[in-house]
Amino acid sequence: MITEELGKRIQELRKDKTGLSQEKFALQIDMDRSYFASVESGKRNISIVNIKRIADGLGVSLSELFKGI
Amino acid sequence: MITEELGKRIQELRKDKTGLSQEKFALQIDMDRSYFASVESGKRNISIVNIKRIADGLGVSLSELFKGI
Repeated sequence: MITEELGKRIQELRKDKTGLSQEKFALQIDMDRSYFASVESGKRNISIVNIKRIADGLGVSLSELFKGI
Repeated sequence: MITEELGKRIQELRKDKTGLSQEKFALQIDMDRSYFASVESGKRNISIVNIKRIADGLGVSLSELFKGI
């Protein structure tokens, strides 16, 4: 599932690029932490506006975010 | 707006890669044609599942779809 692949990629980048916990990262990008947790778990059909907010928080382009997916 | 940037990019790739009309492309990927038209116009906060369906129909990776955005 694409939602799972994207969730794993976001988790990987969050750890590698920011070193922040789910909770702290969600707070930083002003996103509900339980919503963000469910995105990383691949349980949400996330929209482009929220994908962009996450990419910006990670400091990567959308193209980079989707690399390897 | 990210929705507008993505819509323009999808339109550009649809023309360049497929040569199909909005209507024919939407039919090919089994997406409502008025919904697809509104995506190209940047009026929809499209979700990842539908973005993936469009990328597959265009024959590009998600990373390629977002190149330059």
